[in-house]
Amino acid sequence: MEQILGQLPLRFSRLSMFPVFDLAHYTASVLSLREERGAVEVSRQSPIACWFSAMLYCFGGSILSSLMLGEPPVAFLANTTSVLLASSVWYLIFYSPRDLAYCCSSFLPIRLMFAGMKEVTRTWKITGGIAHAHSHYKNAWIVMIAIGWARGAGGGLISNFEQLVRGVWKPETNELLKMSYPVKVSLIGAVLFTMQHISFLPIEKHNLMFFYTIFLVVTKVTMMLTQRPTSPFAPIEKTLAYLLFGWQPTDSRGKGEARVPHNGASSADRTMGGETSGSAKMRHSKKTE
Amino acid sequence: MEQILGQLPLRFSRLSMFPVFDLAHYTASVLSLREERGAVEVSRQSPIACWFSAMLYCFGGSILSSLMLGEPPVAFLANTTSVLLASSVWYLIFYSPRDLAYCCSSFLPIRLMFAGMKEVTRTWKITGGIAHAHSHYKNAWIVMIAIGWARGAGGGLISNFEQLVRGVWKPETNELLKMSYPVKVSLIGAVLFTMQHISFLPIEKHNLMFFYTIFLVVTKVTMMLTQRPTSPFAPIEKTLAYLLFGWQPTDSRGKGEARVPHNGASSADRTMGGETSGSAKMRHSKKTE
Amino acid sequence: MEQILGQLPLRFSRLSMFPVFDLAHYTASVLSLREERGAVEVSRQSPIACWFSAMLYCFGGSILSSLMLGEPPVAFLANTTSVLLASSVWYLIFYSPRDLAYCCSSFLPIRLMFAGMKEVTRTWKITGGIAHAHSHYKNAWIVMIAIGWARGAGGGLISNFEQLVRGVWKPETNELLKMSYPVKVSLIGAVLFTMQHISFLPIEKHNLMFFYTIFLVVTKVTMMLTQRPTSPFAPIEKTLAYLLFGWQPTDSRGKGEARVPHNGASSADRTMGGETSGSAKMRHSKKTE
Repeated sequence: MEQILGQLPLRFSRLSMFPVFDLAHYTASVLSLREERGAVEVSRQSPIACWFSAMLYCFGGSILSSLMLGEPPVAFLANTTSVLLASSVWYLIFYSPRDLAYCCSSFLPIRLMFAGMKEVTRTWKITGGIAHAHSHYKNAWIVMIAIGWARGAGGGLISNFEQLVRGVWKPETNELLKMSYPVKVSLIGAVLFTMQHISFLPIEKHNLMFFYTIFLVVTKVTMMLTQRPTSPFAPIEKTLAYLLFGWQPTDSRGKGEARVPHNGASSADRTMGGETSGSAKMRHSKKTE
Repeated sequence: MEQILGQLPLRFSRLSMFPVFDLAHYTASVLSLREERGAVEVSRQSPIACWFSAMLYCFGGSILSSLMLGEPPVAFLANTTSVLLASSVWYLIFYSPRDLAYCCSSFLPIRLMFAGMKEVTRTWKITGGIAHAHSHYKNAWIVMIAIGWARGAGGGLISNFEQLVRGVWKPETNELLKMSYPVKVSLIGAVLFTMQHISFLPIEKHNLMFFYTIFLVVTKVTMMLTQRPTSPFAPIEKTLAYLLFGWQPTDSRGKGEARVPHNGASSADRTMGGETSGSAKMRHSKKTE
Repeated sequence: MEQILGQLPLRFSRLSMFPVFDLAHYTASVLSLREERGAVEVSRQSPIACWFSAMLYCFGGSILSSLMLGEPPVAFLANTTSVLLASSVWYLIFYSPRDLAYCCSSFLPIRLMFAGMKEVTRTWKITGGIAHAHSHYKNAWIVMIAIGWARGAGGGLISNFEQLVRGVWKPETNELLKMSYPVKVSLIGAVLFTMQHISFLPIEKHNLMFFYTIFLVVTKVTMMLTQRPTSPFAPIEKTLAYLLFGWQPTDSRGKGEARVPHNGASSADRTMGGETSGSAKMRHSKKTE
């Protein structure tokens, strides 16, 4: 019995993402696209823009990391099976008769399952990205972190340009200025796995994958169930910010985050949190200019 | 006699685009740039921005497809002859004394000839793009369609960024959200030639090139003469949209397109159509926020 | 004695930029970032966005030229020492206790020294860029000018996207529409060094490097001391514009430039000059629409 438990992380690390977990990733991604404001209108006005947007949600990490490594960003299209799978999910969720597919998949227990499985793919993407970066640049740990992060955080980091496809432009905010939880946790993951990769962390890779994934899934499911948007890193961040940058995060920011009710998975890859206050600030600053 | 007619498509498919057809393409492209609102002011304020914009119009397809395949987007600059040719055209059309070159080339019959010849280069670009994509990815037909489309639709797809060079930013619209006719017809061409390339269409390449080009030229010239902006695909699109996406295109969109009078070649590569209504909508949504 | 003087350019051209000159470049760049409006707020709100912005200021030329040549834009991250050096400078200038580092480095004589040394690195970057482009494309002098310019003008050319990282978006202006002095002088340098490289200029490379650098440093220091924003090229530009484009630069532009007081090094890499008038124009044109 103990032996089986001991082998669990190793077996887990050999799981294949294709097709079940990939499918869950596509579903969770397209669901979060569909719940963006204006997405349904775009799907009626221009199915091609909507499809392109959905692809950026599903393969954003791959596209971004390709761009960063000077590789063809269209490489993901060469994997015809994945693209067709993602396109089918997109089609069903946006255009199925009577919105059957959407209603089913946004039923909370099903949604929780998809969201949890999507988090599993995140671990695989981060480690994949780091290994890929390592094959290009030996021992360049900053590159490894950057590529791991880009691959894991997926479309989040390119959200400004994804929105542009749908005719939306919000320059006053981006995922670097106001990180959402998935982007933050991907960054932490990229740092951890890179440290493990250059033998700086005394832990085996499959164990780290196991525990990091469990952390991801548990946190995600808890956040969706309790609808609390506060990230579990908030206290650590505060301490770190105080130590490194000599300031306490301003109250307004904390309030801005707390004020917005996150209804489950719509917070999947992006917090729409401070945007209203952000644009209000923007408008205000324009007036005072 | 019959033999000669039979050989016509084959001979046609061996036509060299350089220099006559390329020249026509540059002229038609720079003319449509010059007729963009604000372009003449930019040409006085900053010749370099204007030149760069003109290059994006002339070589946009090449730049975009290079970016998509991870190749140097400046590769087109290495072909010094083409760049000098395009630059001469740009110089003559924007800065010739008394606007002689512009007045001559916008004389309707000359303009029709240039526009027709430009359409011929489109076919060559699409087939070139598909062959190039095929040399990178074997049998990845989605990539082949994407690259063929990018090469054929030229600067249209990157129009948002081309406008940015001239200090114009219209995030509320783009060529994916609201496809212009050249972008649509390039997409159809890319699909047809890709299907032919993977032996899915029982037709020889030179025949397809011949008939597709004739279709392009005839449609373009007809549209310029009748000044009707409605694309010949409208009924097919409606049927397809009804079958695939279960909805009829909203009336407002059709009206928006019909309301705008297209004065010949100013519609060359871009419909400015729904933009006014689009920005009006935008403003409205801002008010109601 | 004469022999020593004669060898001076040769010895000068063998100077190593790392670490002293690079350090000066990073300092001058981060200082000019810090003096951008809103940068300090960004540094409190999101250190990561601020760090990324600083990297774009320090390594902008390298990133842009990599993108243009289809090489990995993250390559600069592989040079861990440089990145750590730049990051330390960024950290000290933004977060040192009581702003000690910022106050020290913005003390005029120190600032002059940093600015002068930064100009020295510009020469090295331009020649490096041209040699790099030459290794890709033989005798493609347009590519060589483009890459040399991109490398030398650094972050200036991508300023729109650098600003976007900080949540600022000014589409109505860019460095092509309204060139700042460093961008102009880099373009001239790129043209000169390319002409030297293809043996069109009868001067040895080390001599050209020597005299170009002296010109850069003297002009820069003079401009910072006299606070006159008018570039020394203004008369040449006027003549050239008159000869080539048949017009005299409009008065409004000259006035716009003259009206804005440049307080020394805050004009380091970007003139904020005509922006106010530019946006005013924008607003006006919107009203009249």
